[in-house]
Amino acid sequence: MYPKKQLAQLVLSACQYYNIDKVVISPGSRNAPLTIGFSNLKEIETFSIVDERAAAFFALGIAQQTKRPVAIVCTSGSALLNYYPAIAEAFYSNIPLIVISADRPKYLIDVGDGQAIRQENVFENHILHSANLIEDVNELNFNKREVAKVIEICVNQSGPVHINVPFDEPIYKTTEVLESFDFKSTSIHEYKKEINYRELSKVWNSAKKKLVLVGVHHKCPKTQELINRLNEDPSVLVMTETTSNLHNDKNINSIDKLISKLQDSDFKELQPELLVTFGGMVVSKRIKQFLRNYQPKHHWHIDKQTKMDTYFCLSEFIGESPVEFFEGIREYLKDTDSDYQKNWLLEKKRRNECHKVYLDSASYSDLKAVERILKVIPENSQVQVSNSSLIRYMQLFDVNPSFSVFCNRGTSGIDGSTSTAIGAAYAVDQSTTFLTGDLSFFYDSNALWNSYVPKDFRIIIINNSGGGIFKIIPGPKSTNALQYFETPHQLTANHLAKMFNFEYFSVTSTEELDENLKSFYHKSERPRILEVFTPSEINDQILTAYFNSL
Amino acid sequence: MYPKKQLAQLVLSACQYYNIDKVVISPGSRNAPLTIGFSNLKEIETFSIVDERAAAFFALGIAQQTKRPVAIVCTSGSALLNYYPAIAEAFYSNIPLIVISADRPKYLIDVGDGQAIRQENVFENHILHSANLIEDVNELNFNKREVAKVIEICVNQSGPVHINVPFDEPIYKTTEVLESFDFKSTSIHEYKKEINYRELSKVWNSAKKKLVLVGVHHKCPKTQELINRLNEDPSVLVMTETTSNLHNDKNINSIDKLISKLQDSDFKELQPELLVTFGGMVVSKRIKQFLRNYQPKHHWHIDKQTKMDTYFCLSEFIGESPVEFFEGIREYLKDTDSDYQKNWLLEKKRRNECHKVYLDSASYSDLKAVERILKVIPENSQVQVSNSSLIRYMQLFDVNPSFSVFCNRGTSGIDGSTSTAIGAAYAVDQSTTFLTGDLSFFYDSNALWNSYVPKDFRIIIINNSGGGIFKIIPGPKSTNALQYFETPHQLTANHLAKMFNFEYFSVTSTEELDENLKSFYHKSERPRILEVFTPSEINDQILTAYFNSL
Repeated sequence: MYPKKQLAQLVLSACQYYNIDKVVISPGSRNAPLTIGFSNLKEIETFSIVDERAAAFFALGIAQQTKRPVAIVCTSGSALLNYYPAIAEAFYSNIPLIVISADRPKYLIDVGDGQAIRQENVFENHILHSANLIEDVNELNFNKREVAKVIEICVNQSGPVHINVPFDEPIYKTTEVLESFDFKSTSIHEYKKEINYRELSKVWNSAKKKLVLVGVHHKCPKTQELINRLNEDPSVLVMTETTSNLHNDKNINSIDKLISKLQDSDFKELQPELLVTFGGMVVSKRIKQFLRNYQPKHHWHIDKQTKMDTYFCLSEFIGESPVEFFEGIREYLKDTDSDYQKNWLLEKKRRNECHKVYLDSASYSDLKAVERILKVIPENSQVQVSNSSLIRYMQLFDVNPSFSVFCNRGTSGIDGSTSTAIGAAYAVDQSTTFLTGDLSFFYDSNALWNSYVPKDFRIIIINNSGGGIFKIIPGPKSTNALQYFETPHQLTANHLAKMFNFEYFSVTSTEELDENLKSFYHKSERPRILEVFTPSEINDQILTAYFNSL
Repeated sequence: MYPKKQLAQLVLSACQYYNIDKVVISPGSRNAPLTIGFSNLKEIETFSIVDERAAAFFALGIAQQTKRPVAIVCTSGSALLNYYPAIAEAFYSNIPLIVISADRPKYLIDVGDGQAIRQENVFENHILHSANLIEDVNELNFNKREVAKVIEICVNQSGPVHINVPFDEPIYKTTEVLESFDFKSTSIHEYKKEINYRELSKVWNSAKKKLVLVGVHHKCPKTQELINRLNEDPSVLVMTETTSNLHNDKNINSIDKLISKLQDSDFKELQPELLVTFGGMVVSKRIKQFLRNYQPKHHWHIDKQTKMDTYFCLSEFIGESPVEFFEGIREYLKDTDSDYQKNWLLEKKRRNECHKVYLDSASYSDLKAVERILKVIPENSQVQVSNSSLIRYMQLFDVNPSFSVFCNRGTSGIDGSTSTAIGAAYAVDQSTTFLTGDLSFFYDSNALWNSYVPKDFRIIIINNSGGGIFKIIPGPKSTNALQYFETPHQLTANHLAKMFNFEYFSVTSTEELDENLKSFYHKSERPRILEVFTPSEINDQILTAYFNSL
């Protein structure tokens, strides 16, 4: 059973041609031709999720893991607008997402019909391309070209695209036949700037202080090798975050722990001559401030797509992958004698000792809870983390290198972390833990309205009864409006767990936490939530004291 | 304590000048200058709501009732995008909403900073005006002009506007002084097209079949008088919906009940020579189809703002209020001898009798439940109704004329009905009942995360375990993908009631419903939810049989 509508058949056919195999559908009537079509295509796996905001983040989570486009399909009207937060996240995190919206025919827009809004180009600011299809047999070539173009852009540039598909009534007619359209993939002749490795190597070889800073990055054996090799050069300091998913004992894997409390003279010591960056967004605000204030003479950013001048001193944008680039330049590189790495590794060691001393005696708090939790998350887990304070707490710890760590850092929103985590958990064959703050969790509570949550999915909520971040950052506490920042509440996840059929546990002390964690990862028939209630009134003091102790 | 930022002071000062007195704030850091400012202004009432989607609909509910602008304030990044569904609703329902978003300074956009997106003009498709302020003392005049302009547009054209306010660090500095800026209201010299009442009256007086159709409309004594007067003319048939809030025994107040099952010859009888429309969106799809297929010779649409050609035969757009227009034309009008009204009132009477017979013996179902509920909602209540099937069921009944009935018909979305209802309940001094379907209710469950719910607020959920609408409309059942339309579920509001501190009741039969309703409206310490579980498998049959019985 297929939809009779040619435009629907065209979209279905294109999705087949480009091997789109996962489609998340939200209910509606106008999208019936797409719903009927997708749910009847054997090679396509369809999901049904009611809240479009959650549906889009769920799809984002899948695409984040598979690195392949996932389509989301909704009806006309405001339904579509609920996709926007996830679209912006996909845009800034380079995650391929194909937004397919059903629409009323043009003559029914702005004339008083229901669920009719101005859908064409509605995501203009944060979309790679919008294909505004036209329901007219004479426009078949235009439609075909646009659909192919938009999916190819999604795949090649890895980001969100939008296909708007108007359907006039009748919309429920079906047929036995699925027409096949002849798509031809456009061959891409990339204009590749010739990279002058020899010239660049002169800068590299003459620099006694080279800082390599990695942002969000997937686990990757070849890049891991590269990191290992770079660390062999005494003039190179590699900085990573938990979301970099690249490890080495010599990495500065806890940037804020190293650079907090540094003085001007220290910063001058740390200031690199050459800064090499790759990967996505960087979590540490401190490192950004540092590099903007103590700019390197040279900054190379290596990325196949995005030219980003984060530190306002970009000198070379290198449009290759880091592995390609360092393979190309390798023959010209030599190690440079320098104390740079050695000195900062000494400082790292010193601070790690302070860290250990402080944590061993720290009282029950957000910080302490995160330490305990990170110790028991099983080997080879996927760890999804919410914004805002959780992902920052994480950065202070040595995370098990077998973990894969992810966080929506494209827009750093709290609006879809749980949905993303569930999508990502569904997509991989790993046990997934979602580590979240309470505000993020309650914000995206509709995430749990989802039939695709794996049994071994684990949610750990650090519930400090409000936006803990606003007590940590300097500012809000100095005003007389703290409640508008922190937004304190007395909510618990207990009721949501019952509602959505999760097993639920809660703890209120380090001992209870440790005890509970012993069995939390045991095999279970239902996914589980552990709610860790921490003392809102001392969390920020503990963190401040921690930094003072370094 | 006021923010030191000039732009924040400017926005605060403008809100004072234009008497904006309600501001809904969502938590964040970048919007600190606005949060600090608004929460310290005595004449401004501030609300704190975490989920921006719910916050915006809550504000929309207040503004829907007060007809005065309500401001919503959020931080930078994807937070803002969550406002979009409510903005589109405000746009199509002509509700004044001032969206104020904090932003990063321009040089920090697209360079890898957190919570930084392209906020300027992001609502382009559905906004009356976007003021993109510039943080530069030299731009004070531009900023002042833009802020004044945008608020005046919001007030005069009654719709959503957007003020984007970039703040560079430091953002938490405060001062004792609130600067006052000299705003000057622009006097509006409306270009008013001279209306040739005499000419128009010729059309009116010569038409033996005049249909007056009213869409969404606020209760209004003067318009009510107008409706009463119009009904005295035997050649006039007045059609209203529950959302028209205008009553008369002669009104066709249940359009679908009258026109379902009509044949071509009946439609030709009903086809007016002159169609006069006013008010907002019309719920009945059938009346739209009828008037498009049997177009009147003349169609006058009377509206101060929106020229909408819903039936593709608009002959006169009259830019006055209906009361103004009919006062202007009155002296030229005369009643016309005709059977038009009489004949259709006979048909109305006949169908009302069938209605009564059917309902008296109808089994427990959505239809039956709505009938029972409408009988016990207290006199003078505000009744808020969700999309999609509930508002349609409502149209089949004679609603107590003392009620005020509202529904988000601008975009007809299910995404914020509960939040809107809570905002509206807060804004008025009436007991408010929110009548909702289960999908709408669970979609907007974050609406209940709200500290401003009046104790006498009542939610009645018709829970038919999925999107009942998709069984009612022809189409979905004919496919093999019904589950993607209906999205069946086993959820209950019980847990949410506990979580958010509502009293909760549930019923599963007509008798239980009647019994429960006896005390449901009694005074209570907490707001209440009544969940009416109806049998999903027969609801649609009952409705079909109802229409067949007419």
